[in-house]
Amino acid sequence: MEISRAADGTYDHGDHARFTGEVWLRGTLRGDDGTNVGIVHFAPGSRTHWHHHAGGQFLVGLTGRGRVRSRGEAGHVLEPGDVISVKPNEWHFHGGTPDTPLVHVAVNGGGDAMWGDPVTDEEYEEGF
Amino acid sequence: MEISRAADGTYDHGDHARFTGEVWLRGTLRGDDGTNVGIVHFAPGSRTHWHHHAGGQFLVGLTGRGRVRSRGEAGHVLEPGDVISVKPNEWHFHGGTPDTPLVHVAVNGGGDAMWGDPVTDEEYEEGF
Repeated sequence: MEISRAADGTYDHGDHARFTGEVWLRGTLRGDDGTNVGIVHFAPGSRTHWHHHAGGQFLVGLTGRGRVRSRGEAGHVLEPGDVISVKPNEWHFHGGTPDTPLVHVAVNGGGDAMWGDPVTDEEYEEGF
Repeated sequence: MEISRAADGTYDHGDHARFTGEVWLRGTLRGDDGTNVGIVHFAPGSRTHWHHHAGGQFLVGLTGRGRVRSRGEAGHVLEPGDVISVKPNEWHFHGGTPDTPLVHVAVNGGGDAMWGDPVTDEEYEEGF
């Protein structure tokens, strides 16, 4: 059993190869199969680039309110306590809403993530 | 992409074959590899029985304060934002502290859980 204490957590600034706007990430622990858990803070309007995960991903809304959308699909507004499952290799993005920050837990399945283009302002509005 | 809304969540009462005391569980979504996410509410003093998961487990403290311990190891007090990784097939328990409730996210790896004996009052105090 391993523990990652919130009190000892360090936060990385989301780099602009993967994120748009002000994003802060706390990585925590990795399981034997490569699954790992992070906590992600998005400022209003900030979001990931389009990306997918070989092992899929779960998001759990903690505070604030966010936008999550898979390419070509309708968007979901993520509220605290909502849980989202993203399938392996499904292109998607997540972030705050235009007016609200978002904090979510991210559970990333094992294997690599593939990062694509930034989510344009038009794509960020589409489907909401 | 699937979403489980907090607003639509239903809660099951923890049964006495797996839990001691007042426990309420909200199941949410399951990924392709069987990994699933739940939200678990423990009243003070309530706890799981000894158990393990074939695919391991992550716990993320949301509110309150809890106790988590693997058999034969020192215990951890789980605070909000703390993350715990439990290895596959590692016997452990989790629950509230004697004086505080606990709500945590549980990320259960694929495969079966094995449930054992209740955690006695002595075992619940040991290692804290």
